[in-house]
Amino acid sequence: MEHSLVLDPIAYYRGPFGSKFGIPRQGMLVPQVEGRIVFCEPYGAPEALRGLEGFSHLWLIWGFSANKKAKGEWQATVRPPRLGGNTAMGVWATRAPYRPNPLGLSCVQLSAIDGTELVIRGADLMDGTPIYDIKPYVPYADSYPQAQSGFAAGAPQPRLQVVIPPQIPLNSRQRQVLEAVLSLDPRPAYQDTPEKNYAFPFEGADVCFRVEDGILIVTDYRK
Amino acid sequence: MEHSLVLDPIAYYRGPFGSKFGIPRQGMLVPQVEGRIVFCEPYGAPEALRGLEGFSHLWLIWGFSANKKAKGEWQATVRPPRLGGNTAMGVWATRAPYRPNPLGLSCVQLSAIDGTELVIRGADLMDGTPIYDIKPYVPYADSYPQAQSGFAAGAPQPRLQVVIPPQIPLNSRQRQVLEAVLSLDPRPAYQDTPEKNYAFPFEGADVCFRVEDGILIVTDYRK
Repeated sequence: MEHSLVLDPIAYYRGPFGSKFGIPRQGMLVPQVEGRIVFCEPYGAPEALRGLEGFSHLWLIWGFSANKKAKGEWQATVRPPRLGGNTAMGVWATRAPYRPNPLGLSCVQLSAIDGTELVIRGADLMDGTPIYDIKPYVPYADSYPQAQSGFAAGAPQPRLQVVIPPQIPLNSRQRQVLEAVLSLDPRPAYQDTPEKNYAFPFEGADVCFRVEDGILIVTDYRK
Repeated sequence: MEHSLVLDPIAYYRGPFGSKFGIPRQGMLVPQVEGRIVFCEPYGAPEALRGLEGFSHLWLIWGFSANKKAKGEWQATVRPPRLGGNTAMGVWATRAPYRPNPLGLSCVQLSAIDGTELVIRGADLMDGTPIYDIKPYVPYADSYPQAQSGFAAGAPQPRLQVVIPPQIPLNSRQRQVLEAVLSLDPRPAYQDTPEKNYAFPFEGADVCFRVEDGILIVTDYRK
C-alpha cells in the first residue's frame, strides 16, 4: 500500500513492570517509577545523543507490543477505564491500545544519560516495550495547559490508602514506588471485590494485594 | 525483525502547502493555517470520532513522506535550522526528518468536525502527508510548560516585515495566512541573498518573494 511504513525498534524500555496490569495509566503521575532506554545498535552512539542533556522531558513513540489482537483488528469504539468501562467513545478520542496502528505516545522525564542508555522517570511502559522514536519535548510546540480534553479533563487522583506491612520483603525505594503506584488503584475500573487477590510482576517478583474499604493491603512479594 | 511494525495510513492531511519549503517549522505558531484530516476508509466512521468534539487539541503522528532518502539512511547528527545550520546535534535531540523511523509528531487545534473530516489549525504538514495515528491532547499528561528544552528554548519570533502589494491576486484570507507564515522567514537559516527569488506552492499556485533589509516582498502568485 502506498505510504506503508515499516518501523524497526530503535531502543527498548527496561523498567520495573512486567505486565500491563499495575502500570499507571499516565506514567508522569508517578515520577517515582524509574526505567531505562536501551538503544539498539548503532542508535545509542554518543554523537546521536549530543545535546539531549539540555532537555528535561522526552517524547517516546512506542509499540503496544503486548496487544493480543492482530494488527488491523481495530475497534471503532472503546470503553475508557476512566468512564467506568461502560461508555463507548470513538477510538480517535482515546489513547486505547487497540487502534489501527498500535502506537503509544508518552512524555517522560529524562533524569540522566548513562553511557549509551537514558535513565527516565514516569514511563507508563511495560518492561521490554519496543521504542520507535524519541523526540525532545519543546514547550512552545507541545505544551497547551489550557487545552480542553473532554472526558479526560482531570488527572486521576490517588484514591486508595496503601498499607505495606513491614514483613513484606521490599526495600524502601520499592515501597515508595509501589505506594505511589498502588494509591492510584490499578484494578480494572469500578471493580470492587474485597475477597479478590490481585498480583502483578514488579522487578522480577509478584506484588500481591487486595483492597477493602478503600485500603489496599500488600499481602506478599514473591517469586 | 522482532517488533517490526508495519503502519498503513489512517488518514491524509489536506492543506495549503504543496512543498516542505514555506511550512512553518512549528505549525502552532501559525494557527491561521487551516487544513483537513481526510480519513481513509473505514477509519472516519462516525462512531470512531465519537467524543472527539470535547477536545480542543490533537496529536498527529505522521510520516515524513517527502524525504528523499531511503528508510534507514539515518544520520547520527543533524544541523538544526535554528542553530544557523552550522552546529551538529544528535538526532535524538532534534525533530529533524532524517531519523531511523521517519515519524513526525505535531500538536494541532481541532476547530471543527465536518462529517467524516476533521478541520484543524496549525499543522506543520505538507499537503498529502500520510497520518498514522491521531490521539487526543490531554494536558495533565502532555503539558509541561516548565520543561527545559536546550537549544530550542524560545519560540521563533516573527522577524520580517511582509509586504503583499494589492495587485497580487490573493484574497484577504490568503493574505492573512501568508503574512503570518512569511513573517517567520521561511528561508534556509541565515541565508540572506537580496537578489534571490524564492517560491513555494500554496493553494495550487506559487507564491514568489524576495527579501531585502528585513522586508519580505511578495512579487507574484502564479500558476
